[in-house]
Formats: sequence, C-alpha cells, structure tokens
Amino acid sequence: MNIDLIIVGNELLNGKIEDRNTHYLACELYNQGHKLRKVHIIGDDEKLYFEALDAAFSHSEVVITTGGLGPTQDDLTKDILGKYFKCTSECSEEALEMTLSHFKRGNREYDQDKFPYHYLPRGFKAIFNPAGYAPGLHFTDGRKTVFATPGVPTEFQAMLKEEIFPKLSKNSNEIIKHIIVKTWKVPESKIFFELAPKLWDELSPLGEVSSLPHLVGVDIGVKLIESSQAQISKKEEKIIELIKATPLKDYIWHIGTETMEELIIREASEKNLTIGCAESCTGGLVASKLTDISGSSAVFWGSVVSYANEVKMKSLGVGEETLKNYGAVSEQTALEMAIGAREHLGVDITVTTTGIAGPGGGSKEKPVGTVGIGISTSKESKSKIYHFSGTRKSLKERFARVALMKLLEAIREA
Amino acid sequence: MNIDLIIVGNELLNGKIEDRNTHYLACELYNQGHKLRKVHIIGDDEKLYFEALDAAFSHSEVVITTGGLGPTQDDLTKDILGKYFKCTSECSEEALEMTLSHFKRGNREYDQDKFPYHYLPRGFKAIFNPAGYAPGLHFTDGRKTVFATPGVPTEFQAMLKEEIFPKLSKNSNEIIKHIIVKTWKVPESKIFFELAPKLWDELSPLGEVSSLPHLVGVDIGVKLIESSQAQISKKEEKIIELIKATPLKDYIWHIGTETMEELIIREASEKNLTIGCAESCTGGLVASKLTDISGSSAVFWGSVVSYANEVKMKSLGVGEETLKNYGAVSEQTALEMAIGAREHLGVDITVTTTGIAGPGGGSKEKPVGTVGIGISTSKESKSKIYHFSGTRKSLKERFARVALMKLLEAIREA
Repeated sequence: MNIDLIIVGNELLNGKIEDRNTHYLACELYNQGHKLRKVHIIGDDEKLYFEALDAAFSHSEVVITTGGLGPTQDDLTKDILGKYFKCTSECSEEALEMTLSHFKRGNREYDQDKFPYHYLPRGFKAIFNPAGYAPGLHFTDGRKTVFATPGVPTEFQAMLKEEIFPKLSKNSNEIIKHIIVKTWKVPESKIFFELAPKLWDELSPLGEVSSLPHLVGVDIGVKLIESSQAQISKKEEKIIELIKATPLKDYIWHIGTETMEELIIREASEKNLTIGCAESCTGGLVASKLTDISGSSAVFWGSVVSYANEVKMKSLGVGEETLKNYGAVSEQTALEMAIGAREHLGVDITVTTTGIAGPGGGSKEKPVGTVGIGISTSKESKSKIYHFSGTRKSLKERFARVALMKLLEAIREA
Repeated sequence: MNIDLIIVGNELLNGKIEDRNTHYLACELYNQGHKLRKVHIIGDDEKLYFEALDAAFSHSEVVITTGGLGPTQDDLTKDILGKYFKCTSECSEEALEMTLSHFKRGNREYDQDKFPYHYLPRGFKAIFNPAGYAPGLHFTDGRKTVFATPGVPTEFQAMLKEEIFPKLSKNSNEIIKHIIVKTWKVPESKIFFELAPKLWDELSPLGEVSSLPHLVGVDIGVKLIESSQAQISKKEEKIIELIKATPLKDYIWHIGTETMEELIIREASEKNLTIGCAESCTGGLVASKLTDISGSSAVFWGSVVSYANEVKMKSLGVGEETLKNYGAVSEQTALEMAIGAREHLGVDITVTTTGIAGPGGGSKEKPVGTVGIGISTSKESKSKIYHFSGTRKSLKERFARVALMKLLEAIREA
C-alpha cells in the first residue's frame, strides 16, 4: 500500500523541535511491506496543507497526518480535513466517551466547554489515544483514506501501533526481505570503483540495490520482493556469494539487520563476557547506546564517565604522572583508563575514550577531533589515537561509534 | 526569503537512516530571517522529484536539495536538475579542479574515468565541499534558484555554512526575535484553559503565538518581526508582563532560548558548583546530555553508570541490605546512590536515576516506567519515585529529562 505522511507544525520548520516521527513510521511501514512514498513537513498553513493532501492522494491511497490536533488555536488538522472532505464539524458521542476515558486515565477532569476534543467532522471516526488526551481521526471515502494523529512521538507511535497499523491491509502475495551486508574500514567509492567495480551491476538483476555510508562503515543493501520464501532464500544466497567473491569479503562485519550495539550485547552474551567502559570525551554516550538495547543489563555492567582528571585518577587509577607527561588525550591515558576500568568495574572487557570534542580545547599537536581509544581484555590491553573532523556533537557520535567498533572486535577476538 | 528543502533518498523512506538535515537547516534559516516553507522527503524517484521541484517553486524562490549526489547509480540529483532546467551535462573545468582539491585533501587520487563529479549540467556552478568529495551544485535562472548538496550531515552543514548561506540575500529591514517562555509542572491544556485562558488572545496582537509541549514542560513562544530593536524590546517587555500577570508565573523556569542542559552548566558555573551523576536506568544519557554542552568540563566531573548492582555497591557504596530489602528501583537505593556518588566523585551536587526502562523487568508493584530520582547536596539528600509510560528509548529520555529538571532545581536551591 502507498502511504504519504504529512507532518504539521511551525515548530518543525523554525527549528524549535526535531521530527522524530518519520523514522519510526518509515521503519514500521517498511517491515510491514507498505511503501512510504513521500513525507511532507509543513507549517500551520492552510494552503500548503491542502496542496500536500492533493499531492499525497495523487500517488498514495492512504495519508497519515501528525500534529495540529491539540487544544490550541494553531491546531488546524480537524478543520482542514473537514473542509478537504466537505464534512461539517459536529459533536461526536463516540469521541466524547473516548476523551472522557483518556482524561480519567490521567486523573484529570474533561471540561466540555473548554476543550474541542469531542467535535469531529461528520463521518469521521475517533481513534483511541493510548498515551495522551486528544483522540485521533479516521476517515475514508472508499478511494482516499486519512488517519490523523497527535504529533507527540509517544502518542503517535502508540496510536499507530495499537489502532492504525491493524487497519492497513497488506498485499499478502508478496514476501519482502532486505539483505544488508555491513562493511567497515573501506570508503563507499573504494568499494564500487576499486574493490568491486562490477558488483552493483551484478546485484541489480536480483533486486533494488542501495549503498549507505555511515559514520563508521558502509552498508550494501538489496531489496527482494518474491512470492515465496524459497525464492528469497535462493536469491539471498546468490547475493552473499557474489559479494564474497570480491575483495570486499575481508571488510564485512555483519550480514543482517542487527546494529553494532545489538551485536555487541548478543555476542558478549553468547561468549559469557561482561563489558564496561570508561568515557571521557564521549561523556556517557557509549554507555547510553549500549543500554538502549533491551537485555543489555545481562552483560553491560557500567561505565565510569570520567570527565575530570580527578575522576580519572581516583576511579580508574590513571597515574598523575601519566596525565602530566602525556596529557589526558594520549595513548597512555586511554590505556590506563581501560586497564583501570576493567579492574574497577570487575568486567572482562572494557573500552575507553579520551579526546577533544571541541569547539575549545584543541592545540596544534592535538587538534579538536583527536581521540584516544583504549581496549582492555584478559589477554591484552591496547590503545590508539585517531583523528576526525566535525562539530562537537558529531565528533562525540563518531568517537562513540569507533569505540563500539573496537569493542565488537575485542569481543570477537576474546 | 522563502525556501523549500527537498531531501532525496530511499534510505530515509525505508527507515535505514534518520534525517538529520532538516533540523539544522530549520534552525539556521530561522535565525537568519528566512522562511523554510516546506520539507519534501522523497525516494530516488524521478517523477516525485519533478513534482517536488514544481511544488516547491510555486511558493519559494530558493530550493535546496540534499542527497543523490554521490558516485553510485541511485544518485539522481544532477540528472534531474539538468532535465528540470533543460541543461545538458558537460565536463566542467571548475568542477574538475574542485574535485581534485577535495581528493588531494583526503589523500586520495581522483579517477576521471570512474567518477562523475566533474560533469555538471551546462550553466550550473560547482560548490566547494569543505568536508567531502562530491562538489555541490548552484543554478539560477533569475526567478528560480537551486542549490544541491550531499546528504551526509557533516557535508551538508559545512557546505551550507561556508558556501550557500552567504549567497542567500536577506531582508535587512526586519529584526526577528522569538520570545520563549519555558514552563514546567503544568500540562499544556491546563495553561490555556485554566491558568491563563485569555493569554493566547492577549499575546496574538503582538506576534505569532505558539505553544510547544515537551517531555518535561511546555514552551510558549511569540515571534516578533519589527523594524527596530526598540520596538522588539518594548513588545518583549509587554509579553513577559502579560504572562507574569497570570498564575502561570509560578511555573516558569526560563525566559529565553537556553536549554535545560545549558542552564545547568551556566548556573552551576556561576555558583561555582561542581556536579556529577550516578545512573542506572538512563545508562549514561544524563551525562551525555550534559557533556553535549560546550564548556561543560568546567563543572561536570563525571558519572558512575552503575548498571549492575555490583557497581552500585562497589563504586557508590549502596548497601547490600538496601538492595535486598527495597530493590534497586527504590527511593532508598536512589538516595544511597546520590550520597555515594557525591562522595565518590567529589562533587557538590549529584543526581541519580534508577528505574525500569523495559520492555522486560517490570512487576505489578514496580511496572516498566517506574524510576527513582535522587539528589544530594551539602544541605540535603532526597529521592522520589515517579511513574511514566513509553518505549524503552522514550522512557530513558523521559527519565533523563526529569533528572535534569531536579538537578537544575537543586542548583538553584544551593
């Protein structure tokens, strides 16, 4: 099924908030075999809202709108959808009952004179909101179907999952699978122009080929749409065979959809290894990424975020002399942090980061973007300096991703 | 100036990556006094690309495209823009020279036979890429102007900042200011229907009013466009006066654009206080948010991410009896973590989190979404249990935001 998403709100276009709904919807629709054709982000603007609805319905049967359903005067969605489908607003018993239940759940009283939640365009159905107060909307005239949801991500996600996805019918004859081959330590252009110049053309007859560079590594994807699982498996085998026949085979770290964090938790768990970190420049980001993974508590014991040198010395036992002679951003400090963290946390493997995320703190010898990454296991402890460029936040992200890569390598070597 | 953004790439619509460019562009254009009218996110689809260009130029003079400029076969931008403006592709000496300099900077050799970077539609100009290999594109026919940039956020941002923003002319007669009043501990509907029911109408004659609910708190914004700084100041004063005349005044935590993390770092710094944390369920997220702030190292010393009970006991001195009798997610453990962290890190104020982010680990007594937040200062130590709902990631985010709120309160009370 073809679906468009219309996101409404001035706050997205003037930078006051960042859209978090597209990514969730994109992942879910993809996994359910639907096609997200276009995302329209517009302000609280009646004309652009109408144009977006027209454009969306010109190539999609279903439109999901998000935002503009709240209680304030800039909340246009209900009014616009009523006008678009030529339905006048009326009080809905169903919406009232639903709203009362939402407010009861939140231990609040619903004031019918002040709130507009129980008014709907005639013919529209109210959608239960599992996580907020405003009901959603649902309407179809047979050819065009619209769902309207609140813009708050928790409400958007809960309403989609529990109420809207079950209503989207699926093409049951198709099996969709995305084969993803994840590589590292080689840039995108080197893959397609040096290591495997014929690969793209070889893969294309099998499915839709794509290439996706990340901060660390490049994913090569092939989307398969077949009518049987056997055909999928056959093609999958062929794809992997084609890729492994090139020198790219030495740069593959995963075939599948798991993230690096997920692999770290799974592989550490399979090897019965406990892990931890000590973070200076990444300031907790590595630990936060690992603890995003459900079940991480089985193997991840903790992190010492040692932003101050005092903490590096006291918690991790980094030598005052080391800091004085080599500086906090050095192979020596990264190494002592890794060894110290392994002892302090009592885990099998640690990874550490110490670097300069900027914008201040850089020098000619150690410019912003310099980072020391340390690893300590029962077999060996090692560290290395890397250099990257970027803003403070993108450098933190990049430092964290390299640390995760080294941690995964260490788990595999352990 | 009215500007549309067209984001191109299947990987955004099938959930393989999340768009990071809209938010950056939205903030920058807003601060520069331009208006981002619409964002179009489309796949590598020629028909939708043409339609997006038509729609964009129907209300904007400038279109910025991002993505589709790489070396692989799904990179359509150059081809589409050439067709749209009826310019045939040709070898460009300027683009070649620029590309050679990009490759030289990256210590790589540019192979003219394999890479397409030195071909441009006739009449297009190449744009220097400060952070990558592919040049951008710039074309104007007098009425319509287009800039094309790579999709990688670091390249997108660098190219905009250094090459494109300087080319966007500005309406120099207007001064724009967004007055933001940040509130907490009161829901959006209560503000506008109970505490200050007339506020929206009172503020509207002064400028464009908006209301923005966050995970913690609601921002009320008024956008002012005036021809002098004096008029801005007069209106700003009036807005604050109007808001402070309502009971909402007791719920304001900031007037201005600083984030909670920025205020924490600034106010701790002004009071000469050092801060730290101990995190269980947030797994480093609180520390990571604080260290996103440039200059945080002056006051933030570190965090003990104590995911395992062993670390809670060893690093923070949480009693084995406490864990046994009350559990890791309890007021008692949160309190002992806060006191222990203050001692262990040697800082003035600590905040701690211990909770259940799910999806597993909940019980009837302590369901997923339960969190204990502890605070310790030289004056007092306290803790409290809160309950929220959401997914693992949204709960981590919410737990972290509440912890930051309590930390800011503690800094203000210290």
